Amino acid sequence: MPIITVEGPRIKDIEIKRILVKEFTESATKAYGLPAEAIVVLIKDNLPDNVGVGGQLISDKKKA
Amino acid sequence: MPIITVEGPRIKDIEIKRILVKEFTESATKAYGLPAEAIVVLIKDNLPDNVGVGGQLISDKKKA
Amino acid sequence: MPIITVEGPRIKDIEIKRILVKEFTESATKAYGLPAEAIVVLIKDNLPDNVGVGGQLISDKKKA
Amino acid sequence: MPIITVEGPRIKDIEIKRILVKEFTESATKAYGLPAEAIVVLIKDNLPDNVGVGGQLISDKKKA
Amino acid sequence: MPIITVEGPRIKDIEIKRILVKEFTESATKAYGLPAEAIVVLIKDNLPDNVGVGGQLISDKKKA
Amino acid sequence: MPIITVEGPRIKDIEIKRILVKEFTESATKAYGLPAEAIVVLIKDNLPDNVGVGGQLISDKKKA
Repeated sequence: MPIITVEGPRIKDIEIKRILVKEFTESATKAYGLPAEAIVVLIKDNLPDNVGVGGQLISDKKKA
Repeated sequence: MPIITVEGPRIKDIEIKRILVKEFTESATKAYGLPAEAIVVLIKDNLPDNVGVGGQLISDKKKA
Repeated sequence: MPIITVEGPRIKDIEIKRILVKEFTESATKAYGLPAEAIVVLIKDNLPDNVGVGGQLISDKKKA
Repeated sequence: MPIITVEGPRIKDIEIKRILVKEFTESATKAYGLPAEAIVVLIKDNLPDNVGVGGQLISDKKKA
Repeated sequence: MPIITVEGPRIKDIEIKRILVKEFTESATKAYGLPAEAIVVLIKDNLPDNVGVGGQLISDKKKA
Repeated sequence: MPIITVEGPRIKDIEIKRILVKEFTESATKAYGLPAEAIVVLIKDNLPDNVGVGGQLISDKKKA
């Protein structure tokens, strides 16, 4: 604890994941006053045909 | 916001996903009085050997 | 299973919750081909100072 | 309900999943006083490049 | 990591929570081969008018 | 989408929440290449008797 979960489209570049985890952890460290070692980040990939925004699948929006 | 997440077995037919996202969004629009654009739906697929009901994996139930 | 979780602002009127649970369950019943008894809906209330959109707390947006 | 979700690295051996689901369900049955049939367990697999601990991806820790 | 989240009705007796956390942690320790210190358990309370089963709020079922 | 959820102990100071939401949103904006308006942050408070680490409730650890 704390645990940070981010639900988003898939991030293909691992370097971007590295920066995201580093920055989220730094922000949480400051906010909670807890050491970085206590903080877990979970990156969750979502396929465009498993996400709807505004009542429409993202995979359909891209085609439009 | 609002964010609707559904954890279920995999839905193979994308047309079923389209209807699910559309209906969930309509229901949430009415309940929260917020526009459809504000509403996100996440469909989460779960494999039968990653779900337990009644203390037993779903993949084992199917065999029984 | 399936489990539907909705994260949103607090719904004060229980009648609105009743309709939301009924409609979500009906939509999931059709999409998954499973009986209503198998479907769980969790309504999660979020305070406006615990939600950020566009980098700003909702409680601050309201004041603006 | 209740619903138990475990976020962890992938468990490859299905026998380990069987035991985990059985034990979690037994513990929840006792704690909530509800029958095993009411209890759902979701096992969530996470890839080592989608998890950060201490500000670092697990996939990077392994290399170090 | 691993992180175990349990969504259920409120547990009033803290001794029951102690046992639940202890047992969940022991089961996860065995399943993942990780030390107890790495394992986090989150107990989530849900009010009966925020949970629907079978299309009906639990708070309404109790009255019936 | 993306949606960032942070599970942690309660943050009492709203100014700390403001900074957390702002920083999480900035990090996600860069990682996903999406505008800040698309990003939602949910801050989840957890009571010390609802969280276990190392098989022990946080509320019990504090007493020790």
